[in-house]
Amino acid sequence: MPDDLRKTNRTTITRHDERGSYDRESANSIIDEGMVAHVGFDTEDGPTVIPMTYARIGDEILLHGAVASRWLSGFAKGKPVSVCVTLLDGLVLAQSAFSHSMNYRSVVCFGTATLVTDYEQKQAAFKAFLDHLVPGRWEDCRQPDAKETGATIVLSVPIDEASVKVRSGPPKDAEKDLGLGYWTGVIPLELTPGSPIPDPLMEPGNAAPEYVRRYKRP
Amino acid sequence: MPDDLRKTNRTTITRHDERGSYDRESANSIIDEGMVAHVGFDTEDGPTVIPMTYARIGDEILLHGAVASRWLSGFAKGKPVSVCVTLLDGLVLAQSAFSHSMNYRSVVCFGTATLVTDYEQKQAAFKAFLDHLVPGRWEDCRQPDAKETGATIVLSVPIDEASVKVRSGPPKDAEKDLGLGYWTGVIPLELTPGSPIPDPLMEPGNAAPEYVRRYKRP
Repeated sequence: MPDDLRKTNRTTITRHDERGSYDRESANSIIDEGMVAHVGFDTEDGPTVIPMTYARIGDEILLHGAVASRWLSGFAKGKPVSVCVTLLDGLVLAQSAFSHSMNYRSVVCFGTATLVTDYEQKQAAFKAFLDHLVPGRWEDCRQPDAKETGATIVLSVPIDEASVKVRSGPPKDAEKDLGLGYWTGVIPLELTPGSPIPDPLMEPGNAAPEYVRRYKRP
Repeated sequence: MPDDLRKTNRTTITRHDERGSYDRESANSIIDEGMVAHVGFDTEDGPTVIPMTYARIGDEILLHGAVASRWLSGFAKGKPVSVCVTLLDGLVLAQSAFSHSMNYRSVVCFGTATLVTDYEQKQAAFKAFLDHLVPGRWEDCRQPDAKETGATIVLSVPIDEASVKVRSGPPKDAEKDLGLGYWTGVIPLELTPGSPIPDPLMEPGNAAPEYVRRYKRP
């Protein structure tokens, strides 16, 4: 198993290549922290991007949706996709409008999405979806039965032909713009959990478990 | 100008249609709150999704990038794209694994991205990019000169053939699963700004302006 992602024509970073890498560990950590992937594919009506939840098992991104989904029904024979996970870390305010930027971490992955049909593999994927979003939850809810498993499409995309792009740190103004006197710096941004909101249909007196009360992204 | 978005084959919502709408005001408010769009298009190597910053002027989404960008160089003659903006609002924990969900708001927009070449229109776009990310900043930095304007590609995508999808509120378990005794409810999520980090290259004693100190998404 290669440590590094595969550099091809479409994963070669041509702009701001100082931000780019092909490091599998960086890709995995971005994928593991994110919660929504944007998945792009062709349809007869043209290119389509949809947001999807996902999980990672080893070197695969797993996606899922309803069998009844129009988009996903086209994947039975495998389909080329691009999967992008982006984390927004901050707004970068520079002296010049031109040098304004964002701090972010992103992975763009290309590959063929194929159907996962094996029952046990689908269960492992369902566990991974919950573990990814809310670690500890899988053991603390009713797990999917055969009917629910059958109603759900699971797709696998290899994390192989992929690249990572990261911008971090302060603004980078051109020398001539330093000293123009504007305030410059970074406004950090973070996706933060609020206080859990109990379901009105739940029996009263059921306290939120620790994995909910102390919820935090990795 | 139509109040509602255009319902076509590819914008018709077939799954969870109770979450869908074609309401332009909802679309605009999601687009205005978001900061990163995921843009999908075809290349000779297959479907590609990249994250981009953007702005909205009226019924158009504006995108920008460097003239030197490989991806954007293919847009000179107009190119079909799908632009998706997704806001994540919470994790929905249900009694059954199958009924777990996310609270989110998303817009998926289809159309042809065309180049904005007029100098004044490009300046208006640059102002919109900054106003969108940091209201108040455009007047408080050095605005783009002719060289910077020339080095930047601006693309316009009509907000027309588009749909909105929103999930909010508590979990929706099947009747038979209510009373299984697990904690159920929502973990709200919000993108929150941290304390501004001053640029080490800025002259000392330059206090952060109010629009930075009180930064907040709409």
